[in-house]
Amino acid sequence: MSDVDPGSPEFPLRELLGFHVESADGVGRAWLDVDERHINPHGTLHGAIPFMLADTAMGGATMSVLPDGNWCATLDIHTRFLSPCFGGRVTATATVRKAGKRVVHLDAVVTGDDGTEYVAASGVFAVIPVG
Amino acid sequence: MSDVDPGSPEFPLRELLGFHVESADGVGRAWLDVDERHINPHGTLHGAIPFMLADTAMGGATMSVLPDGNWCATLDIHTRFLSPCFGGRVTATATVRKAGKRVVHLDAVVTGDDGTEYVAASGVFAVIPVG
Amino acid sequence: MSDVDPGSPEFPLRELLGFHVESADGVGRAWLDVDERHINPHGTLHGAIPFMLADTAMGGATMSVLPDGNWCATLDIHTRFLSPCFGGRVTATATVRKAGKRVVHLDAVVTGDDGTEYVAASGVFAVIPVG
Amino acid sequence: MSDVDPGSPEFPLRELLGFHVESADGVGRAWLDVDERHINPHGTLHGAIPFMLADTAMGGATMSVLPDGNWCATLDIHTRFLSPCFGGRVTATATVRKAGKRVVHLDAVVTGDDGTEYVAASGVFAVIPVG
Repeated sequence: MSDVDPGSPEFPLRELLGFHVESADGVGRAWLDVDERHINPHGTLHGAIPFMLADTAMGGATMSVLPDGNWCATLDIHTRFLSPCFGGRVTATATVRKAGKRVVHLDAVVTGDDGTEYVAASGVFAVIPVG
Repeated sequence: MSDVDPGSPEFPLRELLGFHVESADGVGRAWLDVDERHINPHGTLHGAIPFMLADTAMGGATMSVLPDGNWCATLDIHTRFLSPCFGGRVTATATVRKAGKRVVHLDAVVTGDDGTEYVAASGVFAVIPVG
Repeated sequence: MSDVDPGSPEFPLRELLGFHVESADGVGRAWLDVDERHINPHGTLHGAIPFMLADTAMGGATMSVLPDGNWCATLDIHTRFLSPCFGGRVTATATVRKAGKRVVHLDAVVTGDDGTEYVAASGVFAVIPVG
Repeated sequence: MSDVDPGSPEFPLRELLGFHVESADGVGRAWLDVDERHINPHGTLHGAIPFMLADTAMGGATMSVLPDGNWCATLDIHTRFLSPCFGGRVTATATVRKAGKRVVHLDAVVTGDDGTEYVAASGVFAVIPVG
């Protein structure tokens, strides 16, 4: 598990939107069950929700591969919206594509329980030595 | 103003996170005052918040330039994180770079009241004829 | 095979840089053997070369899945540089992730013969009805 | 001027495709006059050409702001194709948006002599201490 504790009470956004996070061995996951909090005025999942899940999952995946004494920060994320989502459980799964000394490159996909791909994302995270 | 009414009561995410939206003449804006709902476990603004503001502002800017009878959907967004944000008001300002028949290309920047640029985003939105 | 004939004599850039292209059933490939034409002043492969291969491979993959009477054009591409390339054969392999009516979403990876990933790219192509 | 000498004879790609480069004070430019070498089978400028100009201009702009003893490498570039180009002079102009210690964020636009915007790009470059 990563050094980040996304389950800690100091993460109100997680509770507010009701999502869950886990990560280990270069893979991160973040998921939630879509309800009225997450939809936009058109009745579909607001794009910020899968972004949040993908970003959080990529951060967890990154932390899981960094040596102790390092931190990470998102440099940039490219997010593609493949299909509209109308409900159900949505899960972001992030994998490390290349872990370098300075940056980590990741991919993430946000899917439904039936395997539908809602969002594909690619991210670059900076490795930040601490202390 | 766009056809979308992001101020309507059917947009709970807007109320939940406390953001505001306006758009006209190819420019969209979305903003909020950062509080404990918006920060991540490291004490900085969670990246999903400026993404949400930028996406919403770009959607508003797109709708403001489309002829009646069209709708839009986000195809993809590239989001760059320039500086961490520790609080204050953050505002996304989106502008249309190229409005084509099939897609609209936009830029957005998320800034603080002192002009600090936190996030720069570029988006491509699909134009969808309705009915 | 796609309707595009990238092997036709009307494609001088292909001959100038010496690359090859093929595509079928949602997969496109473009490749070349790196020589002094393709390197930048630092002695590594210039980033425009894998971009060219990825873009061309994604165009071929797109055309291979479009119904007759359609054309395509690149809307945008996100290109990540994973490892420097010092020589050898480099091959871009593009796959269709989602083929919609308006746009096609693709992924591409540019690798060496030993499997090293030099570049990962994601692209969005517009579908353009002809005639 | 940057430490890179893109005009040096060790840059055959520059001569092969006939482009020019200059950079100073956080701004980079690269340009060429479109001829049959640069077009794709559809008779328009191949997307790899504006990418090459934008990447090269961003590299020059980055080097112009780095302290001595640093090098740079492209991490990733998002390239949007706004309008097809049928000929004339095309010029990429790159500007530094944020120069950090680890990475430099840049924007580039590729335009024609009449001001038409063909391509907009955003890039993230790694700062690499040498020696």
